Amino acid sequence: MARIVMKFGGTSVADLDRIRSVAGRVKRQLEAGDQVAVVVSAMSGITNQLVGYCEALSPLHDAREYDAVVATGEQVTSGLLAIALQTLGVDARSWHGWQIPMATDGAHAKARIEAIEGGRLIERMQGGQVPVVAGFQGLGPDHRITTLGRGGSDTSAVALAAALRADRCDIYTDVDGIYTTDPRIVPKARRLAKIAYEEMLELASVGAKVLQTRSVELAMKERVRVQVLSSFGSDAAPYENGRDSLPGTLVVDEDEIVEKEIVAGIAYSRDDAKVTVRRVPDRPGVAAAVFGPLAEAHVNVDMIVQSTGADGTTDMTFTVGKTDLARAIQVLQAARGDIQYGEMLTDADVAKISVVGVGMRSHAGVASTMFRTLSDRSINIQVISTSEIKVSVLIGVEYTELAVRALHNAYGLDVA
Amino acid sequence: MARIVMKFGGTSVADLDRIRSVAGRVKRQLEAGDQVAVVVSAMSGITNQLVGYCEALSPLHDAREYDAVVATGEQVTSGLLAIALQTLGVDARSWHGWQIPMATDGAHAKARIEAIEGGRLIERMQGGQVPVVAGFQGLGPDHRITTLGRGGSDTSAVALAAALRADRCDIYTDVDGIYTTDPRIVPKARRLAKIAYEEMLELASVGAKVLQTRSVELAMKERVRVQVLSSFGSDAAPYENGRDSLPGTLVVDEDEIVEKEIVAGIAYSRDDAKVTVRRVPDRPGVAAAVFGPLAEAHVNVDMIVQSTGADGTTDMTFTVGKTDLARAIQVLQAARGDIQYGEMLTDADVAKISVVGVGMRSHAGVASTMFRTLSDRSINIQVISTSEIKVSVLIGVEYTELAVRALHNAYGLDVA
Repeated sequence: MARIVMKFGGTSVADLDRIRSVAGRVKRQLEAGDQVAVVVSAMSGITNQLVGYCEALSPLHDAREYDAVVATGEQVTSGLLAIALQTLGVDARSWHGWQIPMATDGAHAKARIEAIEGGRLIERMQGGQVPVVAGFQGLGPDHRITTLGRGGSDTSAVALAAALRADRCDIYTDVDGIYTTDPRIVPKARRLAKIAYEEMLELASVGAKVLQTRSVELAMKERVRVQVLSSFGSDAAPYENGRDSLPGTLVVDEDEIVEKEIVAGIAYSRDDAKVTVRRVPDRPGVAAAVFGPLAEAHVNVDMIVQSTGADGTTDMTFTVGKTDLARAIQVLQAARGDIQYGEMLTDADVAKISVVGVGMRSHAGVASTMFRTLSDRSINIQVISTSEIKVSVLIGVEYTELAVRALHNAYGLDVA
Repeated sequence: MARIVMKFGGTSVADLDRIRSVAGRVKRQLEAGDQVAVVVSAMSGITNQLVGYCEALSPLHDAREYDAVVATGEQVTSGLLAIALQTLGVDARSWHGWQIPMATDGAHAKARIEAIEGGRLIERMQGGQVPVVAGFQGLGPDHRITTLGRGGSDTSAVALAAALRADRCDIYTDVDGIYTTDPRIVPKARRLAKIAYEEMLELASVGAKVLQTRSVELAMKERVRVQVLSSFGSDAAPYENGRDSLPGTLVVDEDEIVEKEIVAGIAYSRDDAKVTVRRVPDRPGVAAAVFGPLAEAHVNVDMIVQSTGADGTTDMTFTVGKTDLARAIQVLQAARGDIQYGEMLTDADVAKISVVGVGMRSHAGVASTMFRTLSDRSINIQVISTSEIKVSVLIGVEYTELAVRALHNAYGLDVA
């Protein structure tokens, strides 16, 4: 017997048929002897519609009213799923954020969960009842409804799993797990049976968006085991598949991963642009002079490289989000007098390729394999940055697919 | 300075443009110096959609879940109207039933309001804020959302007006007041400036459905002055119209109506069927033998006439709702042994015409005017029933329009 939180996203509850199908899946989980709580998103499209109403009335709408409006989507799904479960003979009831309560801070529209009172729900689960919790929402200190920001239902589910001391949080989504890379680029991409929290965070932040980043951070902090599953598998045998002993991907502490692969996956992102500030007098404080004004303008800077020439000047190269590029150029032009650079070059036609894996901590040679593999394909590396479990390079955007495929093969990730 | 509750129904808040228009109307009411609270229904069509979801999942759905689902419609409107008001510079906030709280009994899907905590809202109104209250819903003793049944937002508004000790409850709807009769039948029908609670109840129960009956009963009990207004009048000058010094119809205590008309209006209904049980042995207990089984089968009986013949038998004639006719026939056939009637006749092609007015209490001759007027048109009266403020007759359904027009003219109700 295990205690499981099952979370179903918007496409999994998109219409009444899918809600019925979700009810069937929950029932089978109960029949396996588990205690189950469910977290649901709004039926797909509903949240966008409600957000659209608020924005049409006022671009600067009151976030408290926005929350009151938008949270209704999940309330509808939780009530409907409770009815669908009852129809199958399952004891179930819906819970809104304010009823549990799921206490959050007062940051409306982007609130953070602070405390969940789990005792009453545990009692009911022990009595055989399935709580069907409206995700994405909570109760603020002002006694009003809060929402957690887009994708917040993942975080609701993980937080609830922590509060209920659940053995696992199953996130049903429209993909069937986390892959070694984007299967659209590499058909031989392999679904991972397990992935460490840290790897998941790196993969998510570089473009493999399956779980909301905050939900992974929370899972890591609270040591909640998160299983990513497809809600569109066979209804009859949800836990069978030919590839793997596990039905999806389990996101866990790295200690739980016995046979660590050195590299878990290859991520890519085309969302960055490169900025180079050339011939800056090489003196103390030059980095602060460049990056201070950017930080003040809320431009996030990612990869940074500094190279010093023989003539007493230095070149600073870094990346910013493509959407921030125009602002970055404006800021740096305004600061030219302070920085005293010779010229500024920008390039939006770049891609960031990252090799991610907790196994790197104990294995040398990951970076050099990456550089050699790209060099063999005559792909020029423009910027390099590394962290404990990740090596990232910036290359020309036209080489994205070639680089991802070559690296996927070089690290032995291709499915046999 | 007055304290006003303004209630807007589903067609008045059907889309964002109408919500903006409602916001403008509320703002003008504030600018007139009044304190204002608003009660809103769901955007038209939404409630039906949500009810449809519940019914599609299960015809016998849990009423508590139904309430949780269906109450979201009003929550959306209250948040959106609050945003629209803020956009016009009006201080406003939404209130859900559970936040006020609007305490109800535990009869989910048809709950009755038990108590409303008005103090906090009054304070805010005195500070210039407009509470925008989600109608139709409350908080049950089980700490879950309840709803009041269809049309319940009228009742929410009247109950709120009582709790806030409001000077008036303005119900904005898709008609501009209460008429002396149906203007589709009598183009010369006149809008009433004032109508007594009792008259409104009689007119509503016989087909002039503008306000939910329960809201009128509550208004009468709590002495809340209710104004029925159109929300589709000119935005620029909502309080002007050529016909009357008042913008709609004020539903008040009859003491407030100085110049009482003897007859306030003519109502009609085609929803009844006539049943006659003939040649029943005329003995004590015969009425109980006929109507007891009907009551047990939840068949409501309305007009009742008994006429005794010379041969020691009696005929019982009465009306039931058309939708109950089949059940009534079944019940009476089953009870034939007990009642020992000779034959049963039924007729669904009847109409009930009613003349309503509190002035009847002090004026004789209302009934005889009715009978003479119908006789002059050769309309046969099949059944008569009277109350303190109403005379009703049953006639052939094909005479409905003729009878209504003739009576409207006979009582001097035609507009000049």
